[in-house]
This record gives sequence, C-alpha cells and structure tokens, in this order.
Amino acid sequence: MISDISMAYNTYGTLNESKSNAILVCHALTGDQFAASKQPLTGKEGWWTTMIGSGKVLDTDKYFLVCSNVLGGCMGTTGPKDIDPGTGKSYGLTLPMITIGDMVRVQALLQDYLEIPDWFSVIGGSMGGMQVLQWASAYPDRCFSAIPIATAAKHSAQNIAFHEVGRQAVMADPAWQGGSYYETEKRPRSGLAVARMAAHVTYLSESALHRKFGRNLQDRDNLTYGFDADFQVESYLRYQGINFVDRFDANSYLYITRAMDYFDLASDHGGSLPKAFENTGTRFCVVSFSSDWLFPTSESKEVVRALIAAAANVSFVEIETDKGHDAFLLDTPELLQTLSGFLDSTAKSRGISG
Amino acid sequence: MISDISMAYNTYGTLNESKSNAILVCHALTGDQFAASKQPLTGKEGWWTTMIGSGKVLDTDKYFLVCSNVLGGCMGTTGPKDIDPGTGKSYGLTLPMITIGDMVRVQALLQDYLEIPDWFSVIGGSMGGMQVLQWASAYPDRCFSAIPIATAAKHSAQNIAFHEVGRQAVMADPAWQGGSYYETEKRPRSGLAVARMAAHVTYLSESALHRKFGRNLQDRDNLTYGFDADFQVESYLRYQGINFVDRFDANSYLYITRAMDYFDLASDHGGSLPKAFENTGTRFCVVSFSSDWLFPTSESKEVVRALIAAAANVSFVEIETDKGHDAFLLDTPELLQTLSGFLDSTAKSRGISG
Repeated sequence: MISDISMAYNTYGTLNESKSNAILVCHALTGDQFAASKQPLTGKEGWWTTMIGSGKVLDTDKYFLVCSNVLGGCMGTTGPKDIDPGTGKSYGLTLPMITIGDMVRVQALLQDYLEIPDWFSVIGGSMGGMQVLQWASAYPDRCFSAIPIATAAKHSAQNIAFHEVGRQAVMADPAWQGGSYYETEKRPRSGLAVARMAAHVTYLSESALHRKFGRNLQDRDNLTYGFDADFQVESYLRYQGINFVDRFDANSYLYITRAMDYFDLASDHGGSLPKAFENTGTRFCVVSFSSDWLFPTSESKEVVRALIAAAANVSFVEIETDKGHDAFLLDTPELLQTLSGFLDSTAKSRGISG
Repeated sequence: MISDISMAYNTYGTLNESKSNAILVCHALTGDQFAASKQPLTGKEGWWTTMIGSGKVLDTDKYFLVCSNVLGGCMGTTGPKDIDPGTGKSYGLTLPMITIGDMVRVQALLQDYLEIPDWFSVIGGSMGGMQVLQWASAYPDRCFSAIPIATAAKHSAQNIAFHEVGRQAVMADPAWQGGSYYETEKRPRSGLAVARMAAHVTYLSESALHRKFGRNLQDRDNLTYGFDADFQVESYLRYQGINFVDRFDANSYLYITRAMDYFDLASDHGGSLPKAFENTGTRFCVVSFSSDWLFPTSESKEVVRALIAAAANVSFVEIETDKGHDAFLLDTPELLQTLSGFLDSTAKSRGISG
C-alpha cells in the first residue's frame, strides 16, 4: 500500500460549461505529462505536438486536454524515486508493483478531482493504448469514446522478452545497487542506456531503419575497423541511450515495463476479452500500423473482434506506413485524418462545438 | 598484423582418394568447431547433429566434413583471449579487427594444409552463410558448390543496431575493463549475458515465442508482482544468458559481431553484387526461412538475383516455418529434404558415391 499519492498533470485548452469536452491523453512507457509543452529536463517540445494544439486534431480551441504522469513514473506522479513518508527515504524497490489498472485508478481520482463526470475521449498509443482499453473496461460510463492506438489487450511473449532484456541490463549495472541508488552518488546510467537502445530498435521497422540509415557511415568516408560508431545507426542508438538517462529514472523503467508485461485484460475477466467490454456504450476507434512489429495489427484485430462480440460501437483502421511502432508519435498524415474524422463525428453526436 | 595464427578444427568422416568429397561447415556467431561432437565446456552434443552423422544429410559415411573455429573466436583459433607473442599478454582489443574475408582466408590456409584442392561444398547458416558467400566470391575454383542458409550479402541496419546493443551491454559492464580483463579475476559476465539475451530474442519468430511460451508462468500458479522471472519466456532468456557466458569470451563476441556488421560483398566489388560472383562455376543452393526476420527472405532473394545476373547455377528455396532464424539449427524437415536433394544430385554430377 502507498499511503499518499501525488499526481502531476498538464492541461491544454478550456473545459466547457457542460464539461463535455475533456479528453484524457495517456502516455507511453517513457512519456510524461508534457504532451504539448516543453519538457523541463530536456527543454524539448512535447511528445505529441503533431496531434495537440490550436487547430490540430486534438484541438485546444475545442477540447480540454488532460495528460498526467503515470503512477510509477518519474516526472511528479508517485514513483520509486519519491520519498516513502514511512521511512523518509526513496521507495526504490519497496514500492508495491504497479499495474495498468492502478495507473487508470489514480487517473480516475484525478478525474474526480477535476470534477469531470466523463471524458469525451480517452486516447493513447502503445502503453497509452493499454490504459485506454483499461479505462473503457473499468469505467465504461466515464468514457464517451476511446481511441487505443498501436496497442494490445495483453503483452506478447516477444514483448515481455524485450522488456526482460532491458530490465536485466539495468539490474546488471553495479550502480543500480538493488534499486537503492538514490542515496548514493551513482545512477545505473549505462544499464538504462542499453535498455533504451534495445527498446528503441523495436520501435522502428526494418524498412524505416533501412530508409533512415541503411549502412551509411557516420561523419567519415571509410570504415575505421574498430568499435567506434562507424555506422549512423549506431551513433543514433547511442544518442538515444545517452539522452534518455538524463530524463528517466531506472527504477521507474523497471516498474512501468513490468506493468505492461502484466497487462492481460482477458485474464482479468475469466479469460474472455469480450467480457472485459460487456454492455459498453463507449465508441471505439482502434488504430494499428502495418509495419508495427511490436504491437502488430493482429493484436488490434483481437481487440476489435472482442469489441464486436461485446456489441460495441467500433471503427478500426490499419494505417499503411513503414514507420513502425513509433508512427503514433510521428507526423503520420493518415493517422491525423483518421482521428480527426472520428473525433469530429463523435463530437457532433455529443453536441461539442469548435 | 597477427604474426602467428592457430586454427582449431574438427573433422568427421573420411577424405576419399580423389579428395573430392570434402565439405567445409562454417559456424555462426556463437558456434564453434564442435558441429557434431561434444562441446568440451558445456558437455553438450554438437550444434549441428540434426544435419551431420552417419546416414544424415551431411553423411559422414559419404563426405569428409571439416569445421574450424573462426578467426577471432574463443575455442582454439586465434582470438582476443589468446596470447600476443609480442607482449606475452592476451591480445584483448589490440587484436586487429577481423572481417568475414579474414575468416575465410585462414580457412583457405587450412584447406591448403589439409591438401584439399577444392571443397565439394561449403555450407553454413547465418554468419556461416556469410562465409559461404565470401568463399564462393573469393575462391570460386575452390568451391564446387555452396550452400548459404538464412544469410545475406550485407548486414542490415536493423542487424547492426541489435549487434550494437549487445556490444554496448558488454562494454557497459565495469568488469570488461576496456577489454583487458584477462589478467584480472573479473569477466564481463553480466554484460555478455544481456547481449546474449537481446540477440536470442531476434533468433526466434514472434509466433515461435508465442507457441513455445505465450504468457505461461514459470513454476507458479499466480503472478508474483515482482521482478522475478514470472513468465517462462523470462526464465528461458535468463538461462540462455547465464549459460552462454560459461562458454564464450566477451571480446570474441565484440570482434565477431563487428565482422558481421562490416560484411558487404557488393561494396567490396564496386557496389555490384553480381560482380562478386563473376564467371563463377560454383553451384549454389540458397535457403531462407519464411519467419526469419533477422535475415529475411528478401535478403536471400537479393543474393539469388545477383547470382542469376552473374549467370551462376543457382537453386533457391524459401522454407515455410514459424521457427524464425534459428530454424537452420533445429530439426526442420523441409530443410533436410532440400539439402539432401541438392547434395545428392551435386554429388552424382561430381562422381561421389556413398
């Protein structure tokens, strides 16, 4: 049990009088509440500025957007790096394990706190999409619509395997110290960077890697025949690894990857995925990407089949792109068109005007 | 320059009088010369006993099989752990970088030493297949036939990326000590285990992982909500990692992965892959596996197209299997049939009798 939970969140746009225009934006594994504002640690623009803004798909002139840091995270919502009031020291691994269900439960408390009776929509990609599915399952009356993108109702064996590689990389770093590194000078930077690098390869498709990098050399005309980053793809990965550790806590990475591994909506409902969505009135728009091999279209189709079996109102689009899993974060025109069409018609039926 | 090179090899079967029945078996990244005999460090049977033996596809009653440890390896052929006669200490990272071309060059010296004028066939999967292609390109008159399996004429950006993750995992381990760990008590076991785990995920297909493990739990009925290996797939991966470090040298892993990354047969021939096989008289049998995403069929087809452009004699088979890249090491009936058909007819045309 955690006795006190802090929640860090950002909002964009204005809640209308009837409180009918609120959208919850759920972030992915390494995301945060800075969906459309500058990330304070990196100084970079938000991770979903392609989607959120005035006149954009998630139109801040029309909707009231809420994005909170997930439970277990490291950007303000309670997570392993925060102080356990019982001991006066960081939780570290004494923090109880967290599930996607827990993340959503505290988001529901935030919804109460903001006095929003129901979300017009809950939207998110990857782990964000898992939260969307969990929301629709646990609180169907509190989601008018739901948009799970590039996600699945359970984590596959391959995805658990990649996560386990990342966790082992963190835990293999002596600076990790069993998770109790907060009171020391050391941080498991090397281990976390390796974990991030391994994960990053899975976020791109083979063809995207080929198109972006191929076998191009990095700032040199010839191979050096050594262990420097001769190839651009190596240099890119190292950059991804090194930058990540400046903004993310290694123990949060362990907790959040584990939450994803444990996610299995059917198993929470006696093995029946349709049962997870029984009698739902929520309108669904399920989106997958053709080149996403981490959360392939087949996983989205499983969700769609279950929704249909539950007599839900569901649209499904597989978007043709070679960008891989990361397509939901990138400027993917067909994604923007799909979501904009779904949101416009759903907003109309709810009487939300721009 | 390395002044003295040791070569460790095993042979199976008997060289016939006309010396026409010798087959060179090339091993993959973590393989060794113990293709069909007990590995001394692990006590396990050879890695290709599905293929090699009396009455098997690589029939020891009919052929004389030679399998040598690659240059840069750690099972007897000169590699980073061996003593540099110039300094009296292990080479470590002072060993010059090694290429697939170098590996093949020393295998050609072994061929001379064994007084074998030409191989009846050169065969291998994955990095073994790269050596096969290099052999056929560099020494066409010394290979009557060539069987590259689950391989490519160059390493893709995605494959370089995964290798780089593995190398960074090794180098992040403080016990690695810049590669100079031989004179110390420490070995970069944790880093190498993580590298092996990451690589191992790529050797299996998503469907093989699903079929073998799915979300099955390991020796328990319920999730423990912790960081133990709850899932069978985690337990399997940890086992793969831990066992690997007992039989493999971390610096060898760095050198050999790098050799694979650098492999680019077209680039060695002015950018033209057909030129790599110009005027070849070698008979080729190219094999790929439908679920191999590390060396997908498209890469084998590129080789086949180049061979056709070079007017080579080539057969090509894509084998339908869900076993992924590892299929070449497993009991894959269609693979055995394909190779047995090709070898029988090729042996007949060379006048080799059983």
